[in-house]
Amino acid sequence: MSGVLYGVGVGPGDPGLVTRKAARLVAGASVIAYPTLAGAPSFARAIVADLIPEGCDEIVMDLPMRGDRAPAQAVYDDGAARIGAALAGGRDVVCLCEGDPFFYGSFMYLHARLKDRFAIEIVPGVSSVMAASARAALPLAARNERVTILPGPLSAAELEARIAGAEAVAVMKVGRHLPKIRDVIGRLGLLDRAVYVERATLPNERICPLAEAPEAAPYFSMILLNKGDDPWL
Amino acid sequence: MSGVLYGVGVGPGDPGLVTRKAARLVAGASVIAYPTLAGAPSFARAIVADLIPEGCDEIVMDLPMRGDRAPAQAVYDDGAARIGAALAGGRDVVCLCEGDPFFYGSFMYLHARLKDRFAIEIVPGVSSVMAASARAALPLAARNERVTILPGPLSAAELEARIAGAEAVAVMKVGRHLPKIRDVIGRLGLLDRAVYVERATLPNERICPLAEAPEAAPYFSMILLNKGDDPWL
Repeated sequence: MSGVLYGVGVGPGDPGLVTRKAARLVAGASVIAYPTLAGAPSFARAIVADLIPEGCDEIVMDLPMRGDRAPAQAVYDDGAARIGAALAGGRDVVCLCEGDPFFYGSFMYLHARLKDRFAIEIVPGVSSVMAASARAALPLAARNERVTILPGPLSAAELEARIAGAEAVAVMKVGRHLPKIRDVIGRLGLLDRAVYVERATLPNERICPLAEAPEAAPYFSMILLNKGDDPWL
Repeated sequence: MSGVLYGVGVGPGDPGLVTRKAARLVAGASVIAYPTLAGAPSFARAIVADLIPEGCDEIVMDLPMRGDRAPAQAVYDDGAARIGAALAGGRDVVCLCEGDPFFYGSFMYLHARLKDRFAIEIVPGVSSVMAASARAALPLAARNERVTILPGPLSAAELEARIAGAEAVAVMKVGRHLPKIRDVIGRLGLLDRAVYVERATLPNERICPLAEAPEAAPYFSMILLNKGDDPWL
């Protein structure tokens, strides 16, 4: 009997925002897996560090700093092979994912490689979009509003067209793209409606109007904006 | 000293998908509040029923079946007054919200009414969008994909324009709008890419291709679709 692969969302950062099911799976794990970036500590692992049992085996997939897609694919190939070997040996594997596994998460690369051979269960997590909205005290969508979620690396022209045609917007993965995104939102005359949220729910969280955001934003930052006049009543 | 109002997301339905923080707040509550619809049992309350302490006071806001907005606003006015009285008396109030409080949630109506007078903390929850994606084993968004979230009550023309211009789409609040939405997706030639998810994570969950979905869908149903050729690799 092969083991089961669990793709477990551990939420945006606050260990209190881990679900009870995710906590139970991590606390009972004999093998966990997670990606790291260029040797840095894993954020997903840090969120649930207190729950990982002593002696648990850890499969680490160390991704290269951004660049071509091919090297990352090779890392996922290798990680999937090691996870697959554990599963084939009858061991369950709990793969830790920041936020939600299927919402801009790396787990989908493992899912694509392993789903035809092994049983996989996805455990959804609290997404950073909802966490940022909660921490900024800025409701995301009411009634029949349409929500558009955009990754920051898109071109300025693409962002401008998409934001112009949207009502409620969340821009993810802001990072070094912040000046470009701020210019676009400024050109659209929406700067006073946009909020910048960095590391939502973590101790070093930062929330401010977009106009006051730092030039250099971390990867885990987001911009929220809503065009409604009084969308919440 | 006034009490604190907690707007607590309890997730999509599976009690295991309640966060540890939400569980802690409910288990320690002396006053909880939640909406019901036309006297039916509260779904949010049912998700955490096992955690509610004996003797906990309950503030119920019974919303009328759909219709004009004014009667619902009067219910929120009255609920906010009762919650405000508890807070002013120094008691914390834990308001239960299905999914996430600020993502098409009713909590924003209470937030708008009480935020200027009381301390409010929002505890984000697992959204039904992420839960549906997990249960359908269908990743929602990868890399630089743009995600559009649309409420089912929008007009056919509006839905068609929005879906035509999007990459990854989630249509919420499907309910009685299912035939209209299916027609739109069919006209766009995307029927074979759309999945229907009903009551994600609950025992009576149902997942099938949109083409095979029932004519009469419940409110808690969703359609997911992605146009990418192989968006997950």
